[in-house]
Amino acid sequence: MSIGTGTSTHIIMRLQLDVEVFSFGEIASCISNAGGDIIGVDVISSNKTHTVRDITVNVHGLKHSKLLGDLISKLKGVKVLQISDRTFLMHLGGKIETALKTRIKNREDLARVYTPGVANVCTAIAEEPEKAYSLTIKRNTIAVISDGTAVLGLGNIGPAAAMPVMEGKSMLFKQLANVDSFPICLDTEDTEEIIRTIKTIAPAFGGINLEDISAPRCFEIEERLKKELDIPVFHDDQHGTAVVLLAGLLNALRITKKNIEDIKVVFTGIGAAGIACTKILLSAGVRNIIGVDRNGAIHRDVQYENKYWNQYAEITNPDNLKGSLSEVIAGADVFIGVSAPGILTVADIKSMAKDPIVFAMANPEPEIDPELAEPYVRVLATGRSDYPNQINNVLCFPGIFRGALDCRASEINEEMKVAAAKAIASVVSDEELSESYVIPSVFNDRVVEKVRSAVVKAAHETGVARKELRAANLVNL
Amino acid sequence: MSIGTGTSTHIIMRLQLDVEVFSFGEIASCISNAGGDIIGVDVISSNKTHTVRDITVNVHGLKHSKLLGDLISKLKGVKVLQISDRTFLMHLGGKIETALKTRIKNREDLARVYTPGVANVCTAIAEEPEKAYSLTIKRNTIAVISDGTAVLGLGNIGPAAAMPVMEGKSMLFKQLANVDSFPICLDTEDTEEIIRTIKTIAPAFGGINLEDISAPRCFEIEERLKKELDIPVFHDDQHGTAVVLLAGLLNALRITKKNIEDIKVVFTGIGAAGIACTKILLSAGVRNIIGVDRNGAIHRDVQYENKYWNQYAEITNPDNLKGSLSEVIAGADVFIGVSAPGILTVADIKSMAKDPIVFAMANPEPEIDPELAEPYVRVLATGRSDYPNQINNVLCFPGIFRGALDCRASEINEEMKVAAAKAIASVVSDEELSESYVIPSVFNDRVVEKVRSAVVKAAHETGVARKELRAANLVNL
Repeated sequence: MSIGTGTSTHIIMRLQLDVEVFSFGEIASCISNAGGDIIGVDVISSNKTHTVRDITVNVHGLKHSKLLGDLISKLKGVKVLQISDRTFLMHLGGKIETALKTRIKNREDLARVYTPGVANVCTAIAEEPEKAYSLTIKRNTIAVISDGTAVLGLGNIGPAAAMPVMEGKSMLFKQLANVDSFPICLDTEDTEEIIRTIKTIAPAFGGINLEDISAPRCFEIEERLKKELDIPVFHDDQHGTAVVLLAGLLNALRITKKNIEDIKVVFTGIGAAGIACTKILLSAGVRNIIGVDRNGAIHRDVQYENKYWNQYAEITNPDNLKGSLSEVIAGADVFIGVSAPGILTVADIKSMAKDPIVFAMANPEPEIDPELAEPYVRVLATGRSDYPNQINNVLCFPGIFRGALDCRASEINEEMKVAAAKAIASVVSDEELSESYVIPSVFNDRVVEKVRSAVVKAAHETGVARKELRAANLVNL
Repeated sequence: MSIGTGTSTHIIMRLQLDVEVFSFGEIASCISNAGGDIIGVDVISSNKTHTVRDITVNVHGLKHSKLLGDLISKLKGVKVLQISDRTFLMHLGGKIETALKTRIKNREDLARVYTPGVANVCTAIAEEPEKAYSLTIKRNTIAVISDGTAVLGLGNIGPAAAMPVMEGKSMLFKQLANVDSFPICLDTEDTEEIIRTIKTIAPAFGGINLEDISAPRCFEIEERLKKELDIPVFHDDQHGTAVVLLAGLLNALRITKKNIEDIKVVFTGIGAAGIACTKILLSAGVRNIIGVDRNGAIHRDVQYENKYWNQYAEITNPDNLKGSLSEVIAGADVFIGVSAPGILTVADIKSMAKDPIVFAMANPEPEIDPELAEPYVRVLATGRSDYPNQINNVLCFPGIFRGALDCRASEINEEMKVAAAKAIASVVSDEELSESYVIPSVFNDRVVEKVRSAVVKAAHETGVARKELRAANLVNL
C-alpha cells in the first residue's frame, strides 16, 4: 500500500463514536494496518450515546493522513469530525494578532489615546500631513496585498485562500525586521479596480508589498502604483526573487572568478519573475542575457503577442540569437531558470563554458534534478530548502522594507535592489564562501541589518530618501 | 495673561541653542513669567556651535503649551525643534502593532507557517471557503474603517488625520474584548467608491466597523454594505451611541418608574446618530417620539429636502405636532439631544412632565449646562466624562463585535442592539441604581461579557448566527 513519501508528522483525528456500535480495537488495527502509529488517545466528551475522542497518530505526510481518514470513516459507528496536523494547528484562528503598544490603564490614559485627547493629535496631522509619519502607525506599517491569482504553485485560488500566505509574510516581516504589516486580500481580479482600491486604502500605510498577483497584470499594477503613490510599492514575487538571485550570482562569480560584464547568461521562463530577474542583472552590469521561452530564444526579428516579450527582446540578446534552449546555451557561463521542471539536460550543461553556474529555481521541481546536474556544474542553486544554496526571497523583503521605512523612501528603485543584493552576498565572507554556500541562510541574523543599511544608503544616493540619515534613530514629533 | 483652563500636564520642549548667543536664565524666566514650571532639563547633544536640550515643563493644556513655544522661539539663539506632551508621546510611532501568535523558531516552523507547508492550508480553504474562519485571522478580526469626513467634533479632516482615532478604537477592541482589528482610512469621499473598496478588501475580515463617516452618506454606505456583504457591518457613531443611550434610558425609567410604552420623548438633532437613536427607541417599545431640528418639530404636512427627514416623519410624531422645541417639549418625559450646545433652557425643562429625564449628549458642550439643569431634572446624562452618567459608546462596540464574531453572525440586527442595551443596563444592580448612576463605567469589566452573551443569544433567536452556541469555545478545523 502506497503511503506517500511525505515527512513523518503527528496528526490529531477527532472521532465521534457511537458507543453501542464502535470498537476501539477495530480503529486501532485499521490505523496500524495502514501504516500509522497511535501516539495517544484523549476523551474529549462523552454521553450515553456518543463519545468524542482525539487520536494522535504519527503519519507520513498529508496523503497518508487523508488515506487514514477515509479508511476510518468507513468503520461502523465512527464519524471523523476533523483531522488536524501540526501545520493546520499552527494556523488555527490565524497567525497574527493586534497588539497594543501601551495598555490603557485608567481614565487618563483613555482620554489620551481616544477622545478627547486624541483630537489634538488629529488636528496636528490635519495641519501638517507629514506628521502622520510620527504620530500614527504609518512610519512602521506596510500592507501585504494579494488578489489570490498566483499563490505559490497553486495558481488562482482566490483571496480567502491566499490569506495564510499573506499572514505568514506578515509574521516574517515582524519577526525578522520588526516591520508591522497587515495582510489584505482583494476580492477582484480587475487591474483598474486593484489599483484604485490600493490607492484608496493607502493613507495609513508606509509601503505596499504586492504578492502573488498573476502576470501580466502584476506589471501594470506595480508600475501604475509606483507612479501614483508616494510610498514604496514592491512586488515581491518579481523583485524579491531577483534580488536574492543576484546575490547568489555575485557570490558564484566570486568563486568562478569571472567578470559580471563578460558572462553569457541564458534565462528560461520570461514571466513576472524572469523579467524582473533579467532587469536586475542588467542593472548590475550583465551585458549578454538570452531569454528563452516555449518557442525558443526571444529575439528581435518577430513581433510577439505578449508585449513584454517585445520589450524584453529590445534589452537582451545582443547577438540576436535564435533557436532552442539547447542551441543557445552552448558556451553560456550561467543558466537561470524560473520556468518548468526538467527542461535542462545534462547535455545542455556539458555544452556550457567552463565552471557552469546553474540556478534552477522552478518550484517545487527544478529545471534539472540536482542529483543529475551536480557532477557537471561548479555552482548549483535551487528554490528548495533541502539542497544547498536556496534562493529564498525571505532573505530580501524584510530588510528591504526595513530600510525603505527607516529612510522614508518614496520608492524602492533599481539601485536600492542592487544594493540589497550586494548586501546579502556580502554576508558570506571569503572564508565561508564555497560552491555549496553562496547564499546565507534565512536564519542568518546579519542579513536584515546589512540589507537595511545598504538600502538606506542607496536611497540617499539616489535622492528618494525623505528622512535625514542621522535622524534615523531619533524620535520626532 | 490668559493661560487657558486646560488640565495641568507635562510637556517636553526640545530646544536647539546657539551656544554663543543663548542665555538659559532668559529661557527660564520666560517660561516662569508665562506661568510654566520647569521640572527638568536634559542635554540631548552638544557641539561647538549648538546644544540641544529637552526642557520638561508643567503647563495648563495645549493652548498654554503653544503660547510658551511662541514666546521662547522669539528669544535670541533659541530654536524650538519640537514640543511634545504626554498625549503626543503616547502616539509616537502609532498605538498598535502586529504580533505573532507563535514565533518562528526554526526551519520546520518556517515550513509550516510559510512555504511549502502553508500550501496545504491554502488548498483546504480553496476547497471549503468556510475554513477561512478557522484557519485565518478572519474569525477574530474586523476592519475599523473611516473616510475621515466626520471625525469627533473636528469635521472633515481627511483620512491621514483620522488614523489616531481609528488606532485608538483598535486598542479598545483588543484590550476590552480581545477583538483583533486593523484601522483603514480611505482616500475618497465618494459613496460608491467607499462601498466598492470595502467590499473588495472584505475577504480577510469577520466584520466591518464603520467610523466617523458624515451623514447622509453613512446611511447608504452602511445599508448597502449590510445587503452586499455576509459579515456584520456596524456604523458605531450611529448604533453605538444608540445602544448606550437606550441602556441609560432603561435605567432612568427604572428610577422614575414609568413604562417605556407610555413616555413622550423629544429628540433634537436628526442626523446620523439621532435617527439611529430614534429607531432603537422605537424597537425597544417607545411609541411617542417627536424629532426637532432647526425649523422645529418634524411632521408629516411638509416635504423635506432631506429624504431621511420625510422617512423620519413617517415613523415618529404620532400626534403630528408642529412648532419649536419649547412648544413641543411641554409635558415630555424625556429630552434627548445629539444636537448643539445651549439649545435647551431651564424653562423648557420646567414645562416637562414630572421627573424629567434629560440626555444632553452634544459634545463637548451639552444642550444645556449640567449645572443649570441639575436642580430641575430627575436624571441627567451627558457625553462628558466629568459629569455622572456618561453616554460613551466604548460600553457597546467591544462587546457587540465580540458576540457577533463568537456566533459568526451574518449581521448585527436591531434585536441584537436592543439586547446589548439591556445587557449594559443590567450591569447596574437595583442596589447600585441611582440618579447619578444609570450607566456603568467604561472600565466596568462585567460589561463586555454581558453584552457578548446577550448579542450571541439574540443572534441565535433571530437566525443570523452561523455557529452553534455550544461550539463557541471549541476549536474547529
